Amino acid sequence: MSLITLTTDFGHADWFAGAVKGVILTLAPATTIIDIAHGIEPGDIGAGAFALAAAHRYFPEGTIHMAVIDPGVGSARAAIAVETDNGIFLGPDNGVLSLALENEGVRSIRQLENPEFFLSPVSHTFHARDVFAPVAARLSRNSGIFEKLGPEQESYQKLDTRVARQEGARIFGTIIYIDRFGNAITNIPNHETEEDDDRVIAVGRAIFPLKPCYQGVASGHGVAVRGSAGFLEIAINGGNAAARHRLKTGSAATLRRVEARA
Amino acid sequence: MSLITLTTDFGHADWFAGAVKGVILTLAPATTIIDIAHGIEPGDIGAGAFALAAAHRYFPEGTIHMAVIDPGVGSARAAIAVETDNGIFLGPDNGVLSLALENEGVRSIRQLENPEFFLSPVSHTFHARDVFAPVAARLSRNSGIFEKLGPEQESYQKLDTRVARQEGARIFGTIIYIDRFGNAITNIPNHETEEDDDRVIAVGRAIFPLKPCYQGVASGHGVAVRGSAGFLEIAINGGNAAARHRLKTGSAATLRRVEARA
Amino acid sequence: MSLITLTTDFGHADWFAGAVKGVILTLAPATTIIDIAHGIEPGDIGAGAFALAAAHRYFPEGTIHMAVIDPGVGSARAAIAVETDNGIFLGPDNGVLSLALENEGVRSIRQLENPEFFLSPVSHTFHARDVFAPVAARLSRNSGIFEKLGPEQESYQKLDTRVARQEGARIFGTIIYIDRFGNAITNIPNHETEEDDDRVIAVGRAIFPLKPCYQGVASGHGVAVRGSAGFLEIAINGGNAAARHRLKTGSAATLRRVEARA
Repeated sequence: MSLITLTTDFGHADWFAGAVKGVILTLAPATTIIDIAHGIEPGDIGAGAFALAAAHRYFPEGTIHMAVIDPGVGSARAAIAVETDNGIFLGPDNGVLSLALENEGVRSIRQLENPEFFLSPVSHTFHARDVFAPVAARLSRNSGIFEKLGPEQESYQKLDTRVARQEGARIFGTIIYIDRFGNAITNIPNHETEEDDDRVIAVGRAIFPLKPCYQGVASGHGVAVRGSAGFLEIAINGGNAAARHRLKTGSAATLRRVEARA
Repeated sequence: MSLITLTTDFGHADWFAGAVKGVILTLAPATTIIDIAHGIEPGDIGAGAFALAAAHRYFPEGTIHMAVIDPGVGSARAAIAVETDNGIFLGPDNGVLSLALENEGVRSIRQLENPEFFLSPVSHTFHARDVFAPVAARLSRNSGIFEKLGPEQESYQKLDTRVARQEGARIFGTIIYIDRFGNAITNIPNHETEEDDDRVIAVGRAIFPLKPCYQGVASGHGVAVRGSAGFLEIAINGGNAAARHRLKTGSAATLRRVEARA
Repeated sequence: MSLITLTTDFGHADWFAGAVKGVILTLAPATTIIDIAHGIEPGDIGAGAFALAAAHRYFPEGTIHMAVIDPGVGSARAAIAVETDNGIFLGPDNGVLSLALENEGVRSIRQLENPEFFLSPVSHTFHARDVFAPVAARLSRNSGIFEKLGPEQESYQKLDTRVARQEGARIFGTIIYIDRFGNAITNIPNHETEEDDDRVIAVGRAIFPLKPCYQGVASGHGVAVRGSAGFLEIAINGGNAAARHRLKTGSAATLRRVEARA
């Protein structure tokens, strides 16, 4: 099986994702195309990087992941293909691939510069269709072309992400993502907590006690749980934590003992 | 062919549906995955149940339907697999499967309790990925494992739905669903009407005459038609009935003769 | 391979697209179904026509394109199948196919009137499921049934589109589409411009200089570029041009020399 995933900010009202799929199926008819997400906010590289990082590990070995949140399309930013131990990642070199690549053993990075693998002509506004889709399709038919894609590149663009840091008994973290349910994902890894952990996460004056699941508190109450993306997550049982507490990406979130005062 | 459908409230901005598909295709690469809907409002079990009930009958025999609107994920609510004459239904036992199962000959219900069919570890917040997807994938490869999924269960959770009731010449119904077009679907079955039926549906003071199609009235006028999900439906020809008349799920809708007064 | 694309205004919260796919896969299990877009605004025939016209040319020869934005469903409007040099187009004869068909060599047009190819019974509100999907599925298995679909029809309904017109040194155009990024697509073809073109597009008092790509101007500034659908497009580098300048479908957009005054 040959599998290509798509992560974009193209939405579902326009023709963009459709055209990308048409190009792939024209060049590689037997490929299965899976949408990770097309509803990333326009230009939100961080959200796209998060979605790809959270989802990619659940796909089979050899999957080709194409992530195009690309506000710099047509400019001098590089387009890259990254071969890892598990598959191939394609996207603009603007950080959208970086959170996923942190989990991966990176083998080789190539700049997409060989026009024989592109559509012709290449537009200046839609490289997902004209550059990334045809390269993905051709790689899915023959991964041997990887070295012909263009010159090698040493490293890839990383996002300016913050890492949670420990100070005494506290771990100072940040909210890095808000999901559809209003759950706020922090950058504090689940493995910082233990099975019976009675600490809390504090965000401003709001206190969220650590529980095994959302229902560890009464309906309508705040709770912190080990999240499915590997990080602690703040929620309201049956409610929307981000809306209620005006949580935002970038807000400080501190894991601490309940005795402590904010 | 092996076919799995998905009905969820995951939306399209997050990575959830993508991860579910990755799990399925890792375990059952030849499976075709079809989205029924991912845009169900967060936690709206009734809307998810309606979507699955309306769509499932159009899929081929043997299809596996996975419906995960699951506000109780991680709590004591059961996860079930239901074998029917036409296929297999998977979801939390919170009513999301119930409207579809009412149309089906139910053969057997199993609780999903055998961890050998799950991902490991199982998170407390994302059973679609960790429980339902791997079980669906494994069933699609070998439906013979059905009996090994867990203990048998006698019945399934039903929704607290109202049935339209006849009183004299009137049928007292309820609006059970509002669709994207602002059409309001009632719980009055189409078969309560006849080919040339000159009755109306009254909702508050608004009167909607029964017509064969939306264009049975002039543009901008209200109309009631036999709907595609099997129930009478209120619409405005070329407009949005729910917005104009502030129709809501739960509003009373009465089928009666036009001579009658509300 | 047999491929069917879908372009609709069904959205993603309802069961409509799911039911359509179920019908297709029941009748033609080996078919690949690709969504071009389901997020077209309800009843926006022009937007659906634009999406199909922009995307269809990227699909392989023989693809069946089904486009159902169908506010007149159930009325006397015809349902048609159009065979072209590249594939088959199915939809209501209300203009939704017309922009795509302008690019195609049309061979034959048939009205869908033969009920042996439909579901039975046919509803009056959901022909995508009951008429177009089963016809698409059957055509994908055997294109030889095309002539049995119904009586031949000479031409198809066209949209009342405006063509940009030249007057002296100016080209007077119109905005025909606003995409998710707030980019405004005009009806002025890319080929009206040259490689080093220092003209501007004026919309009201706003002036957008022609550049090769969005980054041809500083971040936050307006720009006009050759768009990926073949027409000049107005944007803001890193911003939303439609929101900032209140651009709408139908607004006048004039290509002219920068010396000129509006």
